[in-house]
Amino acid sequence: MSSTMLSTNAEYYMGMALKLAELGRFTTQPNPMVGCVIVKDETVVGTGFHIRAGEPHAEIHALNMAGSNAKGADVYVTLEPCTHHGRTGPCCDALMAAGIKSVIIATHDPNPVITSKGEIELSKAGIDIYYNVLRQQALDINRFYFHRFNDADKPYVIAKWAMTNDGLLTRPNSPYITGELAREHIHQLRQLADAILVGANTIRHDNPQLTNRLKHIPDELRRQPKRIILSSDASFKTNARVFNGEYQQLTQVISPSDNPDFLTQLKNNNINTLIVEGGGITLDYFFEQGWVDEIHVYIADCQTNSVDAIRQAAFIQDKHQFTMKETQQLGPDTFIRARIIQTGDT
Amino acid sequence: MSSTMLSTNAEYYMGMALKLAELGRFTTQPNPMVGCVIVKDETVVGTGFHIRAGEPHAEIHALNMAGSNAKGADVYVTLEPCTHHGRTGPCCDALMAAGIKSVIIATHDPNPVITSKGEIELSKAGIDIYYNVLRQQALDINRFYFHRFNDADKPYVIAKWAMTNDGLLTRPNSPYITGELAREHIHQLRQLADAILVGANTIRHDNPQLTNRLKHIPDELRRQPKRIILSSDASFKTNARVFNGEYQQLTQVISPSDNPDFLTQLKNNNINTLIVEGGGITLDYFFEQGWVDEIHVYIADCQTNSVDAIRQAAFIQDKHQFTMKETQQLGPDTFIRARIIQTGDT
Repeated sequence: MSSTMLSTNAEYYMGMALKLAELGRFTTQPNPMVGCVIVKDETVVGTGFHIRAGEPHAEIHALNMAGSNAKGADVYVTLEPCTHHGRTGPCCDALMAAGIKSVIIATHDPNPVITSKGEIELSKAGIDIYYNVLRQQALDINRFYFHRFNDADKPYVIAKWAMTNDGLLTRPNSPYITGELAREHIHQLRQLADAILVGANTIRHDNPQLTNRLKHIPDELRRQPKRIILSSDASFKTNARVFNGEYQQLTQVISPSDNPDFLTQLKNNNINTLIVEGGGITLDYFFEQGWVDEIHVYIADCQTNSVDAIRQAAFIQDKHQFTMKETQQLGPDTFIRARIIQTGDT
Repeated sequence: MSSTMLSTNAEYYMGMALKLAELGRFTTQPNPMVGCVIVKDETVVGTGFHIRAGEPHAEIHALNMAGSNAKGADVYVTLEPCTHHGRTGPCCDALMAAGIKSVIIATHDPNPVITSKGEIELSKAGIDIYYNVLRQQALDINRFYFHRFNDADKPYVIAKWAMTNDGLLTRPNSPYITGELAREHIHQLRQLADAILVGANTIRHDNPQLTNRLKHIPDELRRQPKRIILSSDASFKTNARVFNGEYQQLTQVISPSDNPDFLTQLKNNNINTLIVEGGGITLDYFFEQGWVDEIHVYIADCQTNSVDAIRQAAFIQDKHQFTMKETQQLGPDTFIRARIIQTGDT
């Protein structure tokens, strides 16, 4: 597909583009995160990332910074450049107009409006195309976006819980298991997800708000997840916080026995990313059904950070295999993100 | 100092600027890492970071991206903007010419050519100045740069070692303690440091290369640290790798008994950042003298990640107090970065 050589530093530049992409983590939805780095004579002449839907794409920012240096340069972009006229012009047109030499792409765009169209258009214009540089990382940062287009009949399900280092989901004499940094971290996920699901007992015993209280995010960019309560009967105390206050219209009670296909219904209602927060019975139910795609675990006062240790939680049996994706120390607590290896995963 | 209010999202924007700054980690030397975010009406209109010495500063890239949107905007920058004519024009002039409203600065620049001059110049032009937003993070990412200007009579010393989870510096039947990811991570530090120091026994027993073999860095940006061998006699086998090959002129043997002020001499010879890689006797000596500023520890097959656990290494006694700065899982190994709390630290 290409007449020239891929730079031996391709992974270095694409790594920079991926880090740029991640700067849009909390603000690009429903668009994917995208980063772009333009390189000429082994010098970075342009960088950009997609900041917010409706604003210019990563490639446009990077081309603006590069100016006339874009001519004959190599463009590293974490997702296939678009060819469609959305709220901003097509990036492929801008790349061709700037006279760039090659485009190095981490992965295809799963959106059928875009997939492979960029490649065809750029190739026709004589631009070299390279694919799959740091592809796995590019798939991982936009895994919720990719899930939306993969014909799945259910949301991407994240099982999230906090536990003590001996596997308990509660701590005597304290409303919280983990510290302040871990609790702030949970709100980052709520900014990214479309809904939170808990069982009826969690509402009755803990009376949580289930809102996104992420600090340091501009108000107009804050996203409030819907709240799904799984319950076979709809009796709750009138003071339950999810049924009161300014977000009460975001709360929905679902009886799984009356709606066995409730996950498909949620997906059809634009719930693409779902956090299941427990308690143990609800988490156990989701694991038993094979519905969990990813786990987020906060381990208090942690003396361990191996995937094996997570199995201490009674609801994870040996039938699940994990790929560790991320560990982070959050004050006294450890955060672990791991994906469940599904049959057919590569 | 200012007539208007600091945005409630100031830490959000400065956090983005800090992440941008870190994209230059391996390439800005001898300059500091700097990131810049320009915000107008709670919308990010410009971003930039310093990529390489001699190339435009972060503010210039961000102003170019913002264009006419910079007028009346707020500029978040991780280090005080410069006023001097170096290889690129002064950033303060560019900020004033663009008509920006306020500058939010994470921390002063320690370089006496710059310190406070930017503040004075911008204030005279009627621009609001705010300081110390996320200051500790800004100090930490450029701690080697700050050390260069702080009148220290020795380099910034990083004690680095790998150990098993029961505190041993060697592993039977293997040349390495840690896995491939941890060993690659070590080369990142070699890219940042000016010299590596080991004891004579390390040369005699392990015959290391002590070179920077970081992957995915453009060749012209690769920095090779000097190699300092502490030895009371200069007898080494002729096949010692540090005395052979293309970097042999970077190797220096120092007798500490003949040169008790050798650390001061190194600092005077532009060794601002020094990695002490051991073995145990050399590390013990540096800890005993109170010379260590920071530790980098790789723990193999780790079952722990608390600072306490590091004390298992015999050479760290209870006399040292640490601030945990970073933990990272590197395949099967855990990386810990912590700073030693010096008397007088705030």
